Amino acid sequence: MSQATDAFVWENQERFLDELKQFLKIPSISTLPEHRPDIDRAAEFCAASLRKAGLENVEIIPTGRHPLVYADWLHAPGKPTVLCYGHYDVQPPDPLEEWKTPPFEPSVRDGNLYARGSADDKGQMLMHIKAVETLFAVNGTLPVNVKFLIEGEEEVGGASIAKYVSANKDKLKADVGLVSDTALYAEGIPTLCIGLRGLVYFEVTAVGAGRDLHSGLYGGCAPNPVFGLIELLAKAKNEKGVIQVPGIYEDVEPPAAAELESWKKLPFNEIDFLEREVGACRLTGETDFSVLERIWARPTLEVHGIAGGFTGTGAKTVIPAKATAKVSFRLVPKQDPEKVIASFREWVRKNTPDGLQTDVTVLSASPAVVVNPDHPAIRTAAGAFSDILQQETVFIRSGGSIPIVGDFATHLGIPTVLMGFGLPDDGLHSPNEKFKIQNYYNGIMTVAHFLEQYGA
Amino acid sequence: MSQATDAFVWENQERFLDELKQFLKIPSISTLPEHRPDIDRAAEFCAASLRKAGLENVEIIPTGRHPLVYADWLHAPGKPTVLCYGHYDVQPPDPLEEWKTPPFEPSVRDGNLYARGSADDKGQMLMHIKAVETLFAVNGTLPVNVKFLIEGEEEVGGASIAKYVSANKDKLKADVGLVSDTALYAEGIPTLCIGLRGLVYFEVTAVGAGRDLHSGLYGGCAPNPVFGLIELLAKAKNEKGVIQVPGIYEDVEPPAAAELESWKKLPFNEIDFLEREVGACRLTGETDFSVLERIWARPTLEVHGIAGGFTGTGAKTVIPAKATAKVSFRLVPKQDPEKVIASFREWVRKNTPDGLQTDVTVLSASPAVVVNPDHPAIRTAAGAFSDILQQETVFIRSGGSIPIVGDFATHLGIPTVLMGFGLPDDGLHSPNEKFKIQNYYNGIMTVAHFLEQYGA
Repeated sequence: MSQATDAFVWENQERFLDELKQFLKIPSISTLPEHRPDIDRAAEFCAASLRKAGLENVEIIPTGRHPLVYADWLHAPGKPTVLCYGHYDVQPPDPLEEWKTPPFEPSVRDGNLYARGSADDKGQMLMHIKAVETLFAVNGTLPVNVKFLIEGEEEVGGASIAKYVSANKDKLKADVGLVSDTALYAEGIPTLCIGLRGLVYFEVTAVGAGRDLHSGLYGGCAPNPVFGLIELLAKAKNEKGVIQVPGIYEDVEPPAAAELESWKKLPFNEIDFLEREVGACRLTGETDFSVLERIWARPTLEVHGIAGGFTGTGAKTVIPAKATAKVSFRLVPKQDPEKVIASFREWVRKNTPDGLQTDVTVLSASPAVVVNPDHPAIRTAAGAFSDILQQETVFIRSGGSIPIVGDFATHLGIPTVLMGFGLPDDGLHSPNEKFKIQNYYNGIMTVAHFLEQYGA
Repeated sequence: MSQATDAFVWENQERFLDELKQFLKIPSISTLPEHRPDIDRAAEFCAASLRKAGLENVEIIPTGRHPLVYADWLHAPGKPTVLCYGHYDVQPPDPLEEWKTPPFEPSVRDGNLYARGSADDKGQMLMHIKAVETLFAVNGTLPVNVKFLIEGEEEVGGASIAKYVSANKDKLKADVGLVSDTALYAEGIPTLCIGLRGLVYFEVTAVGAGRDLHSGLYGGCAPNPVFGLIELLAKAKNEKGVIQVPGIYEDVEPPAAAELESWKKLPFNEIDFLEREVGACRLTGETDFSVLERIWARPTLEVHGIAGGFTGTGAKTVIPAKATAKVSFRLVPKQDPEKVIASFREWVRKNTPDGLQTDVTVLSASPAVVVNPDHPAIRTAAGAFSDILQQETVFIRSGGSIPIVGDFATHLGIPTVLMGFGLPDDGLHSPNEKFKIQNYYNGIMTVAHFLEQYGA
């Protein structure tokens, strides 16, 4: 069976690549209103591809912003249902002058396909559709039930899909989610991501005087909300990077010993990581933990900026009436976002400097997600991955957040297979984004194998 | 003599007011390039007024940006020379919708003239010219030598005049400067400002990683320059507002006992000041010092904002490669800006958090200025002021900086009489800026009396 699907992919390589190129030519930049017609064209491209693959009930679903695309095929009674997710929107291509070839004119160089969206996420999403098309072509049927839900707002917060998932639990009912929007740990290493950190993002506002004051005329006696936020937030972490907000570490669940052991086997080199990826003079943070633990399994607190006074070019001597800091926490398994929110609010209240009034607004909150590597879908996916790349599959986590995975867990009660075929240097969100063409074909084959074996 | 000049001012009230209105109709906004023709018209208005008053050698001096206007009259041998300064440029009028009458259509209500620039500084600058015109008209001559230097960049940093003063010391040689760009301490109280704080304005840049990083993927091990600046700057002051940078207080010269005594007699009410002017829940700072000492005679450190990461609307999870804080110190007499710069640089170097590289840039540096109240020009000005307002003149300081006063002191070696006729609620830089019309006439009479008595 599998050899037949592999053969079909090999025979259709050129066509599959051409179709991806057509998709990549649509500049479906979700954040720019002038690209709204391109958003619609990209949604229609998805719908047409789904229909062509053999899926049914294809619909373009209007939302408050950019449309969702849904399709399904539910004729495998007694077999599990896989909910495939992807997004057809892309980041803006700026700075344009740094692209070697135009971002929306896909170009092949050294076995890579260069274009905005090639890896994130058009190429990876199309893999799912082409895998289904392959299975239909070879077998005339599918080994499992499938549902597709594709969005056009991933790069702008994904509000519509979150709402849709929570409101359509029955329609979207499935046994497992499948998302290809991540990368291999390194070239050639089959990789499943089984943990994502959560995120709570705050705005902390401090108010001092009733109006902006001149720092000459009032400096020395008027409360300065910018400095007040600095005083406050400096207390939030100690010099070793340990968060000082009470209770933050209370519920933190450390990774199992076996998982920690497996991380040690990854080809991770701290000096390479520092020099090639981070580019700072040294790494920082909780030195009692390994670097991978710090970024995958420890909560963090970051401040992203303090505005309200003056942050433009040159000098302005203002003591602003109000200042705002952007503060985020990354969360790890078992941390409850609501508890973190309450702790932080209380801590801000207690530590607000004299003369100021502070207010904490929550801009987003999502818990960490972990998937049990012994879940049948994960075990099957690991096997299919190893088949194609001829190496043992590694299980990693990511320090980032993929909100849809949390939505699937919360609203549908299902785990998600995070099976990504990108590479760490694909340049997502950057100029010269690329997708290795062989990984596109490998992805189609791996997804087809996974669906076959999961249905078996 | 004085009675004759007073009478001339009374007789010419209407004309003097009309001329000010013509001047105020020119929207000479120095920061907006589209108003460059208005800048030129305003400079020409000054030149014409100076010629009409009887001054000689009137010239419009081109600079790298907006022109200066110069004039003199030097036919009083053996008498002192007074260098009159003012500026013809104004702040932008935004927000326009808050003006009761349009900013460049001068409008009289309740004895006030409402227009952008009425008090800051067109009205006050024109007082000098009208005083000279009055003296010429009444006496056919002037009691002292006078020079006028008027600029069009006061609201945008005043770079051209600073350069011009340092390059034209002989041409501008004088015994005393005269600036009317301040306010009475309160309605009806003749006020001379005899001290200004200095200012050193820094940009502190911290660099961490080689590029902007995703706070999910790297948070926990990558240095965050925004948080690093917060950690650093929080150490710059203790909770009582005392600056912790070594040596900052070393050279601070406290005001003389007599000056401190005189401040106690000012009609200053701390509760009024807090509620009406500052509008915060409480005043802050060094509680061992009175409020007036804190704002007039103590050094301060303020942070105006931290940029580089994200300070826009909503949430962005970035650990920026680089962040910049705007930091300023106000300086008091005897503090050497160069010494403060060196101390701050050294302190930043020593306290830079691990993983970051910091750099300190100086955007501006000017020392504090104090004038001896026993200087003959100050004593004479105080007398002339008391004559007109029929009250004892008070001597105050200002916590702000007027760079031209420092330039006159540094390059010409002269003190400056800061004789302002505005009121604290004139709304400089705000909508509905006004100038009390009676104070315009009082100003013309006071300046005329001052010049007469100073020449006597």
